[in-house]
Amino acid sequence: MVVTVRHRLETSGQGDAHDLTPAVTAALADSHLANGIATVCVVGSTAAVTTLEFESGVVADLAEACERFAPRTGEYAHHLRWNDDNGSSHVRAALLGPSVTIPFTDRSLTLGTWQQVTLVELDTRPRAREVVIQLIGD
Amino acid sequence: MVVTVRHRLETSGQGDAHDLTPAVTAALADSHLANGIATVCVVGSTAAVTTLEFESGVVADLAEACERFAPRTGEYAHHLRWNDDNGSSHVRAALLGPSVTIPFTDRSLTLGTWQQVTLVELDTRPRAREVVIQLIGD
Amino acid sequence: MVVTVRHRLETSGQGDAHDLTPAVTAALADSHLANGIATVCVVGSTAAVTTLEFESGVVADLAEACERFAPRTGEYAHHLRWNDDNGSSHVRAALLGPSVTIPFTDRSLTLGTWQQVTLVELDTRPRAREVVIQLIGD
Repeated sequence: MVVTVRHRLETSGQGDAHDLTPAVTAALADSHLANGIATVCVVGSTAAVTTLEFESGVVADLAEACERFAPRTGEYAHHLRWNDDNGSSHVRAALLGPSVTIPFTDRSLTLGTWQQVTLVELDTRPRAREVVIQLIGD
Repeated sequence: MVVTVRHRLETSGQGDAHDLTPAVTAALADSHLANGIATVCVVGSTAAVTTLEFESGVVADLAEACERFAPRTGEYAHHLRWNDDNGSSHVRAALLGPSVTIPFTDRSLTLGTWQQVTLVELDTRPRAREVVIQLIGD
Repeated sequence: MVVTVRHRLETSGQGDAHDLTPAVTAALADSHLANGIATVCVVGSTAAVTTLEFESGVVADLAEACERFAPRTGEYAHHLRWNDDNGSSHVRAALLGPSVTIPFTDRSLTLGTWQQVTLVELDTRPRAREVVIQLIGD
């Protein structure tokens, strides 16, 4: 009823994005589940998972929009506390959210053709990321 | 344990919104489930599902806020790639997210009185939309 | 298979935030579930649940970012309709979202060390809030 797959990847820092759809599709294919939901969740508070048309233009446009409400070089209370430089990362991650939940029916995710489950790296430095893919269904 | 309902609707383009709560409530009433979660997910990368007080003022206010970080007439790398005009749609959809998950207990969604599950159309043209309502529980 | 816990708390108004992780962890410990997902959902349309590093700097930084796209003292169509003052609350809540879904494996939530499930109060006045923690798994 519950199938867990852990997916690890390396990112290059803020602005990097990775298409997780192949990993989620593979997890579903390897399971015995036909109908249910897939929760795809990144561990940590400076990255996010959402869906988008995975092409470099949309990825860049999303980063520019984030820059408008959480500029990378802005002043952040978080910087004063930890002498850190990733306040923009924390704000963007809280707004985008750490996970997305997508239904599947007849062993297929209900995604559009130009819609991919995407990890958005928001931290200011390269990170090793762990994504938990949790499938629940029957 | 898993009940799927597909809900189709027509939208009038960016700024349009539809209250999905009646469809979700009907799906729950038609099921045999008492306790669990409802994942409501739109297929495609230029619309979103969230909850809001479904009245035209809030819908307009949300569009204006989106305009601040992803202006409809702005410049988008996505436009250059596809000669398209809906870069703002993609960015807004990625930030709002394609799905929302709401618990239900004793056969009722745990929503507030002034809180509705809402499809927010973000594309720049009218669209036929498919929403997948996935109920999981017992 | 489904375990529901209701968690009540009092907030002090816009800018207040509460760490819900202890309540979710306790709900999981009290259950018989080992693997699954936890959906944490606030009832109402002027608060949100997300994950963030729960420290006062990040909480303040998030509020300042929200101020950029939904200023508290801005003009809102919602105000004209109801003679209310919380248009900024509704817009922020729709963008942040009412719920977050986090996997758990071997009886532990898959959160990072500096990542907490957080209620973000967005209303302009103190509120009594109800959070529904819905655990599904086996």
